[in-house]
Amino acid sequence: MREFYLIEIAKGILKTKRDDIIVGLGEDDCAVVRVGNKNLVLTTDCLHEKTDFPVGIKPEEIGHLALAVNLSDLAGCGAKPLFFLYTITLTDRIDEEIFRRILKGMKDLADRYGVAIVGGDTDFGDELHISGFAIGEAERFVTQNGARIGDHVCLTGLLGKAQLSLEQLFSGFDRDKIAYPESLFKPEPRIREGMEIAKHANAMTDISDSLAVSLNLIAKKSCVGIEIYEELIPLDHLLSYVDSNDALELFLYAGGDYELVYTSKLCQHIKIGRVVEGKGVWLVKKDGSREKIEFRGYFHSPSQHSEHEKK
Amino acid sequence: MREFYLIEIAKGILKTKRDDIIVGLGEDDCAVVRVGNKNLVLTTDCLHEKTDFPVGIKPEEIGHLALAVNLSDLAGCGAKPLFFLYTITLTDRIDEEIFRRILKGMKDLADRYGVAIVGGDTDFGDELHISGFAIGEAERFVTQNGARIGDHVCLTGLLGKAQLSLEQLFSGFDRDKIAYPESLFKPEPRIREGMEIAKHANAMTDISDSLAVSLNLIAKKSCVGIEIYEELIPLDHLLSYVDSNDALELFLYAGGDYELVYTSKLCQHIKIGRVVEGKGVWLVKKDGSREKIEFRGYFHSPSQHSEHEKK
Repeated sequence: MREFYLIEIAKGILKTKRDDIIVGLGEDDCAVVRVGNKNLVLTTDCLHEKTDFPVGIKPEEIGHLALAVNLSDLAGCGAKPLFFLYTITLTDRIDEEIFRRILKGMKDLADRYGVAIVGGDTDFGDELHISGFAIGEAERFVTQNGARIGDHVCLTGLLGKAQLSLEQLFSGFDRDKIAYPESLFKPEPRIREGMEIAKHANAMTDISDSLAVSLNLIAKKSCVGIEIYEELIPLDHLLSYVDSNDALELFLYAGGDYELVYTSKLCQHIKIGRVVEGKGVWLVKKDGSREKIEFRGYFHSPSQHSEHEKK
Repeated sequence: MREFYLIEIAKGILKTKRDDIIVGLGEDDCAVVRVGNKNLVLTTDCLHEKTDFPVGIKPEEIGHLALAVNLSDLAGCGAKPLFFLYTITLTDRIDEEIFRRILKGMKDLADRYGVAIVGGDTDFGDELHISGFAIGEAERFVTQNGARIGDHVCLTGLLGKAQLSLEQLFSGFDRDKIAYPESLFKPEPRIREGMEIAKHANAMTDISDSLAVSLNLIAKKSCVGIEIYEELIPLDHLLSYVDSNDALELFLYAGGDYELVYTSKLCQHIKIGRVVEGKGVWLVKKDGSREKIEFRGYFHSPSQHSEHEKK
């Protein structure tokens, strides 16, 4: 059973039509609901020790990450974050000091973006696990389904850094020696960028799985095609560590960087492509040939790729 | 490390003062925040296979329970539930059919109370685990800290049924032979009662740990004493199964029934006591003697009691 397949099952069983639900279950990064005179933007995301915490991660970074992945979802809709709640499953390897440091990491990030942590539930089990639940608001929110032909396709930052660093870690590097420790252990949710972009973008999402997954979702939901131009793709930050083929693979198919990708008439960041008529996502090579960008992504040990491919 | 101790640590690290936070982290069953022209009531609760799902529970009941414990928190504040999000950790023992049935149980309960399930995250691990996040609204909400001297102390229903049934299950009874299977496997959150009671009650909370824990929280936070009268305590529903001492123990100290206890000038349900001057919670026996009701509760195998005592 694959995650995307399970989401479809859940949508089939749980979906509810109601006037106060603007974006419902499984339709986008977040749900958007109307309460009183506000659009509330809601999301939830959970992290597990074995699959989501890289070797050597510090307790503060675990807390940071648990909040960051949820804030990144809000950022992908252009929402302003307001409140956060969490549940945490502690193991007997987590002593009071580690627990305090996890919460401290969460609080530091929360403070930086004006997020109030208003609820939590602590329990015990065999694996450290944190579920987060974030609430934001957005007068104008942006989903994956509004891309228009002629829009620029833009990125808030460089990609491939988290996965490159993870692979270095797997190959035996110390955490001090990997290329981009901050991208791997302490990614910054693009909250401010998301709120700014939401003023003009037609489609937007955060890149948690991979650029390829995000672009395919935007193209499919917006009923458009997307062309990415190889000559516009910035790879210099990867080329000191891997060859150009591997760098392109990391850029397109690796996850974990939590940048935003958006389509708009206005590009305030890194322009990499354009929304076109047609279907699918295409890489236009320097020689003019076109290659399909598949719907797949990963952010784990290379040996685990197959588990995280999106079908 | 005990759960109540960990809540105090979390409060110390995470607490935020802000004008839009009316009831903050760890202060009550739910947080209450102001967004636009509404009071939003927020809560989160998680369940684990090993500690929270009794032997023989059906998948539909697992889904029901995950939502019910969260709705019960909202009921304890008198809130009207609006939205629900969940994260679920599946194991390799959960096939697609079981996953569907878990969601079906969640959806059936949600529909009965007009709750829209708008978000979910599915992941994999070694133990089945569900975290829930519920959002409600309340024009008038009730907390644990408003009890007034002279108030009646009232219960929405009978207590001890879930723990009695659980102990029967542990002692080898089939699930069809236990006294109150509905109380154990499919407790009903007192949503409608909570909303009705919120119109007049001064203090209220749901009884997830035990009546003793709930009353001690109300007494402490409201700076009052509470007297419970033995002659008013209904035990008939337990006396076919256990002797009167054990029945009283179950009624006062067992959890899992998810009834509401409230203090008010108006008692619409079962009256069991009165708010008085002083401190602490007291059982007034039929012979007029007084006995302290301790701050403890449990809802698990009798052998696990010590783990779940509240210190």
